[in-house]
Amino acid sequence: MSGIYAGVDLGGTNIKAVIARSSGEILAESNTPTLAHEGPQKVLDRIAAIVEELVRQVGHPPQAVGMGCPGLVDVEKGITRFFPNLPTQWRDVPVAAVLGQKLGCPVRLLNDVRCATLGEQSFGQGRDVATMVFFAVGTGIGGGVIVDGKLRLGPLGAAGELGHQTVLPDGPLCGCGNHGCLEALASATAIAAEGLRLMRGGMASALYQRIQGDANQITPRVMAEVAGLDPAVRDVLVRAARWLGIGVANAVTILHPELVVLGGGVAEIGDLLLDEVRAVVRKRVGMFPTDDVRMERSQLGEQAGVLGAIAWAAKGI
Amino acid sequence: MSGIYAGVDLGGTNIKAVIARSSGEILAESNTPTLAHEGPQKVLDRIAAIVEELVRQVGHPPQAVGMGCPGLVDVEKGITRFFPNLPTQWRDVPVAAVLGQKLGCPVRLLNDVRCATLGEQSFGQGRDVATMVFFAVGTGIGGGVIVDGKLRLGPLGAAGELGHQTVLPDGPLCGCGNHGCLEALASATAIAAEGLRLMRGGMASALYQRIQGDANQITPRVMAEVAGLDPAVRDVLVRAARWLGIGVANAVTILHPELVVLGGGVAEIGDLLLDEVRAVVRKRVGMFPTDDVRMERSQLGEQAGVLGAIAWAAKGI
Repeated sequence: MSGIYAGVDLGGTNIKAVIARSSGEILAESNTPTLAHEGPQKVLDRIAAIVEELVRQVGHPPQAVGMGCPGLVDVEKGITRFFPNLPTQWRDVPVAAVLGQKLGCPVRLLNDVRCATLGEQSFGQGRDVATMVFFAVGTGIGGGVIVDGKLRLGPLGAAGELGHQTVLPDGPLCGCGNHGCLEALASATAIAAEGLRLMRGGMASALYQRIQGDANQITPRVMAEVAGLDPAVRDVLVRAARWLGIGVANAVTILHPELVVLGGGVAEIGDLLLDEVRAVVRKRVGMFPTDDVRMERSQLGEQAGVLGAIAWAAKGI
Repeated sequence: MSGIYAGVDLGGTNIKAVIARSSGEILAESNTPTLAHEGPQKVLDRIAAIVEELVRQVGHPPQAVGMGCPGLVDVEKGITRFFPNLPTQWRDVPVAAVLGQKLGCPVRLLNDVRCATLGEQSFGQGRDVATMVFFAVGTGIGGGVIVDGKLRLGPLGAAGELGHQTVLPDGPLCGCGNHGCLEALASATAIAAEGLRLMRGGMASALYQRIQGDANQITPRVMAEVAGLDPAVRDVLVRAARWLGIGVANAVTILHPELVVLGGGVAEIGDLLLDEVRAVVRKRVGMFPTDDVRMERSQLGEQAGVLGAIAWAAKGI
């Protein structure tokens, strides 16, 4: 047994891949456009070629491949179920079998954010904790829950969807079909939409100047850059952080974890976000003291997914 | 080893106690007023006397005593922390040591709703499931979470407070200090308060007649009895059930349990409640199909607590 694994993070835009030891030490890595419009077969060919190239670089075949997928997968069978954000038809594609045949080793699928949760547990903020929750706050809000050291999967590997708690029953429509999910209120998409409203409404002149009025350039990070100049933009970030704080407070109230990790692009806004989340948790968790609940930004950042895929490959099922 | 245990459920109004086998077979039981105003020492004397009397009836000493407490306890140390609903000072009372000395066997404390959760898992709806959540909907809304067969405690035995999720950020004040907790919107107390509003506002003539205008008699059960005659009363019950459905949907989204059990007095309203909860879960859990999530009323009813105390006594820590 070589102790060497491959990790793949299949995203809507890019395929990230690494070869790494089970310790998390990365031996080779790559980042390639997904070109998802070409459909599952071409994308799987591409993934196989990427892994083979990394294996050539390392000179060592992996014992197994772990792969984070942007949606619902049948973990046991290694079959895709539903990828809401990838174009073309990904329903019931036997990815583990197809890739396993090409690469000559077992391939293990998992939802991408559950992968990132596992990454953060294995190699990031969660190395010394038994129970933690992970919020991936990006285009959407994904999540993952680890109880007593074990990733909570549920029958479909779909447990841990912390971004799809209802926190405002009559709130905006969410991509999942529900109204008032945390994701609909605090994701990068929701924040950017508010940024657009302010900019077009003449309430964010610094934002307008920063991106020359180009709505396509509005992101939470750009908004954070001008927050010191545009009080209304700052207010949007604070309000999103408060929603996120409510989501975190609910997870804390239900699970009393030792650790809450915030990952994804929005977490990179910085202290403003984390300070507000901590304040909301202090205020809203009334049933027990929360001094012992650590709340931190992801330590692995964009690497959480591929490193989690390594941990998943090494774990077996 | 006799396999015989004592279970105690300390409530604000009554002390329930049983002697039972670890199989859940009850050998003797009693129900006695708590008289909580007399303070911890007298109440603990009373509990010891009750257990001793039951032991006399059975003719067999228990191997251990499990005790459900109405608040926060230090599970490891067997010390009370905070009982919000009992008068007099219950902070830091070494209940396990005091009762253990009197009764000559180990005494194990646990929050009362976590006890009921354990009861329902061990002897009720949850006998064949690994992962379940329990909502105790009464004066307040308590909860409990079981993951992979194990009751989730957290460092203070306080995890599982499903009634203290924020589901309406600017909602009514909750006893825990937060605003918009599920408890503040869907507990028996919240339902009765709405009943009062309707009755005094002239919108609930059948309710008025049923209890001769006596506000002290308003309960969810009485309201359920007149719901067929007073549409506004029925609307209050449906709305409370919808809030409860949101709380259940959130727990399902986060944990994807096999089973959700609704206990406590409000659960006895009947099908109206459960039907609405199921409908809301179907509607609001958008990330995965929920056909495999059973939602049921408690099978043990008021016995869930003492039977859970038996299970807790038998488990050890």
